[in-house]
Amino acid sequence: MTYRAYVFDVYGTLFDVYSISEKCTHYFSDKGVRISQSWRQKQLEYCFLRQIMGTYIPFHDITKDALQYVCAVEQVYITEEIITDLLQAYLKLSPFAEVKQALEMLQSETLVVFSNGSFNMLHPLLNHSRLANYFRYVVSVDEIKQYKPSPLAYQHVCNRLNMHPKQILFLSSNAWDIAGASHFGFQTAWINRAKTTMDLLSATPNYMVNDLQELIGQLT
Amino acid sequence: MTYRAYVFDVYGTLFDVYSISEKCTHYFSDKGVRISQSWRQKQLEYCFLRQIMGTYIPFHDITKDALQYVCAVEQVYITEEIITDLLQAYLKLSPFAEVKQALEMLQSETLVVFSNGSFNMLHPLLNHSRLANYFRYVVSVDEIKQYKPSPLAYQHVCNRLNMHPKQILFLSSNAWDIAGASHFGFQTAWINRAKTTMDLLSATPNYMVNDLQELIGQLT
Repeated sequence: MTYRAYVFDVYGTLFDVYSISEKCTHYFSDKGVRISQSWRQKQLEYCFLRQIMGTYIPFHDITKDALQYVCAVEQVYITEEIITDLLQAYLKLSPFAEVKQALEMLQSETLVVFSNGSFNMLHPLLNHSRLANYFRYVVSVDEIKQYKPSPLAYQHVCNRLNMHPKQILFLSSNAWDIAGASHFGFQTAWINRAKTTMDLLSATPNYMVNDLQELIGQLT
Repeated sequence: MTYRAYVFDVYGTLFDVYSISEKCTHYFSDKGVRISQSWRQKQLEYCFLRQIMGTYIPFHDITKDALQYVCAVEQVYITEEIITDLLQAYLKLSPFAEVKQALEMLQSETLVVFSNGSFNMLHPLLNHSRLANYFRYVVSVDEIKQYKPSPLAYQHVCNRLNMHPKQILFLSSNAWDIAGASHFGFQTAWINRAKTTMDLLSATPNYMVNDLQELIGQLT
């Protein structure tokens, strides 16, 4: 392999955020799928806006705010118990089908998790999914309170690993994350799970694949 | 009146961005309304992401990128001529119904336009709508290449007006803009045209009204 480290985004890349939609459907019936999608969208928007405004709060709190906002807009009744249960679901997301086998094939490499998520979300998730042992480092933006796609966030990974950006392959399914990582100087692999179009943000990933297995085929 | 200046956001606040949906329907038929809405959403997202990544390009270029991305996702055929015509429509947006009369009532005050838009979009728009003469200053983030809701953008208005934030009432229909302006220190009026819920971004506007007439009623 040609990289000193493989740095993985978490939400949407290793784990399927929309696996939460079942639980949303349980509570919100026909509005459940739309709420789970709006929830994710607002969660990202709130990260971006707070990064720009300089009003950081941890991802767990943003995730709760986003849920409460979406439920207010959708005019669905929600209790503290429901909120707690839905946030718990974030700790038990399903990994995508090919993830475990792909990590097995890369296990001789330096594998790293790097997320906007706070440790109180990342550690339970990695433990519950039994993927924790594949990763030598778990890096969170919460350590510096700067959200991706800020260059400050990507620099934090280089500092933690003591590596130069060009030595690192960064993998994400989120086009905005790939754009930020590419502008920063990482080598990038866009895991285009949704089979959509790359955003027009003046950045081109080094690899464009539909899942991790396809990427490994191109690496070896 | 109790403020030294009244600073107005432009898109969605003075002018109806969705008035563009008719032209989108002309070109994209049943997909037109959805494209016009996705176009606006992507336009904002690209501003936020480029602000975070530090890769500023002018609003006119972001607007074009957002349109081309949305058309690619929606798999609709688009020519340079259609792009040019749709971007031209941004220079001829319709003001909301009560705007002209509201500006009349405030014309003895210092009225200011402050937008993420570049001057090559703002000046034609204000001239075409015959609203230009109501405003003593037209301020664009393009002068400093920092998009709202960055504190650097709001500070630029204070510098241009040589005023303290607390002396300024900032008016916007965009909740993210109100949040950024409130965190910066402006007095804020959220023109809640969509009659929706305030985003949960740890900011509360000083006024919450449905249109400018309602605000003036509360000011006087």
